[in-house]
Amino acid sequence: MPVERVGVSFEPELLQKFDALIKKMGYTNRSEAIRDLIRKEIVESAIKQEECEVIGTLTIMYDHHEGNILEKLIHLEHQHNDEISFTTHIHIDAHNCLEIIILRGNNKQVKQLAEHVRSLKGVKHGDLSITTLSI
Amino acid sequence: MPVERVGVSFEPELLQKFDALIKKMGYTNRSEAIRDLIRKEIVESAIKQEECEVIGTLTIMYDHHEGNILEKLIHLEHQHNDEISFTTHIHIDAHNCLEIIILRGNNKQVKQLAEHVRSLKGVKHGDLSITTLSI
Amino acid sequence: MPVERVGVSFEPELLQKFDALIKKMGYTNRSEAIRDLIRKEIVESAIKQEECEVIGTLTIMYDHHEGNILEKLIHLEHQHNDEISFTTHIHIDAHNCLEIIILRGNNKQVKQLAEHVRSLKGVKHGDLSITTLSI
Amino acid sequence: MPVERVGVSFEPELLQKFDALIKKMGYTNRSEAIRDLIRKEIVESAIKQEECEVIGTLTIMYDHHEGNILEKLIHLEHQHNDEISFTTHIHIDAHNCLEIIILRGNNKQVKQLAEHVRSLKGVKHGDLSITTLSI
Repeated sequence: MPVERVGVSFEPELLQKFDALIKKMGYTNRSEAIRDLIRKEIVESAIKQEECEVIGTLTIMYDHHEGNILEKLIHLEHQHNDEISFTTHIHIDAHNCLEIIILRGNNKQVKQLAEHVRSLKGVKHGDLSITTLSI
Repeated sequence: MPVERVGVSFEPELLQKFDALIKKMGYTNRSEAIRDLIRKEIVESAIKQEECEVIGTLTIMYDHHEGNILEKLIHLEHQHNDEISFTTHIHIDAHNCLEIIILRGNNKQVKQLAEHVRSLKGVKHGDLSITTLSI
Repeated sequence: MPVERVGVSFEPELLQKFDALIKKMGYTNRSEAIRDLIRKEIVESAIKQEECEVIGTLTIMYDHHEGNILEKLIHLEHQHNDEISFTTHIHIDAHNCLEIIILRGNNKQVKQLAEHVRSLKGVKHGDLSITTLSI
Repeated sequence: MPVERVGVSFEPELLQKFDALIKKMGYTNRSEAIRDLIRKEIVESAIKQEECEVIGTLTIMYDHHEGNILEKLIHLEHQHNDEISFTTHIHIDAHNCLEIIILRGNNKQVKQLAEHVRSLKGVKHGDLSITTLSI
């Protein structure tokens, strides 16, 4: 694949701080770190659009003794067959389960579905992480 | 389990807005919505502490044609056997893979490890979601 | 003003954690803390809408020796007379200035204007905080 | 001031997306956009450290008819003379005031003070934006 080169000028002090930061983050070269920063910005900008196609990773913690949460989750998952492409389940302790639900669809639908899951009684906490394929 | 009841007073206008919001989110009762808001705040406060025990869900998108990313990921995963409790892999298209890596450990370690994974060449984008068991 | 009372039931453990958290935050009563959590959620939900009327506080750090940044800022501020309701300026050190720009308008316009200010050469860093009047 | 030049290689597709993004943001050259992304990352990394010296811009909305909020704010501001370097006040409507409070100090103190202000009865909403001088 052909690549294009772009030259970026830096005050030495800024470059020094950048080198320190990316070393701490694990990068071995500046070019890769800069490309990753740019990709991150592109993704963050894209996922601000309501209509953007996204992939959401919803991590929920729930108490499986509480109500019929499992049934409700499975019911929801089947209702939203198009958006939910994958779920997995981790046994944490006697009470708590972690469930990872991968959602595909447009941004707005994915966020609404995530809120709906979080609102279920028994779901103690949920965090949704959003990314996009178009990168 | 015994429960304690707390009375909260509201101006009618605020209560109206709250009811509209939680209905949109999928809640069927205010009590559950308020408890969830409180749990969210407790989790958000806890995970600001560097030493807090956390569970991280790292979602990364990568190009499996790029370099030896799979080997590097597997190498990292075995090196960090204590922190990485689970990974799963989703085939997206001809180039792109989504990998979900569940990390357990203290907040600082989990974040560093996530940054390290994100810095690997071939990893296009990564987003880390953090929660805690102590809720 | 008449108030309505809502009863919320808590497991004792959750209530204990909540009490510890709000004490640390400075609250002296639970009712006020719960109302504030609810207002925060309402604001956060409102400002996700592109068309919501918002108030933005843009904090920028810039080097006043760099180019003609002051002129450009003043030019921008006069062009966007409707959105920029107020600016103030703090002298930080020999090079750095902090400028606080209060923006009123719809969410999308306010964010675009903030991005435009941040893109000016000489502006080193900018952070936009958004709130809404409708609370 | 001498500058150093760094070359960054891009796949053409990524460069195209980046060009589209920064054009929308108002940048006229890539070099400046890349430096800004880097500064943003440095600031975001710095302000994760509890002991970092920061500047906080706290925007609060409050109802000046409610209790003796003005007195409490002024009392707080004088108690924290070292951290609060500046406040300003904007009249919004018959009930609502916007107050911008600039806080200087270490990250932890600034966040605690902001939480304390937000916890005052009458303060409806508050948002804290954090930056650092060391950029």
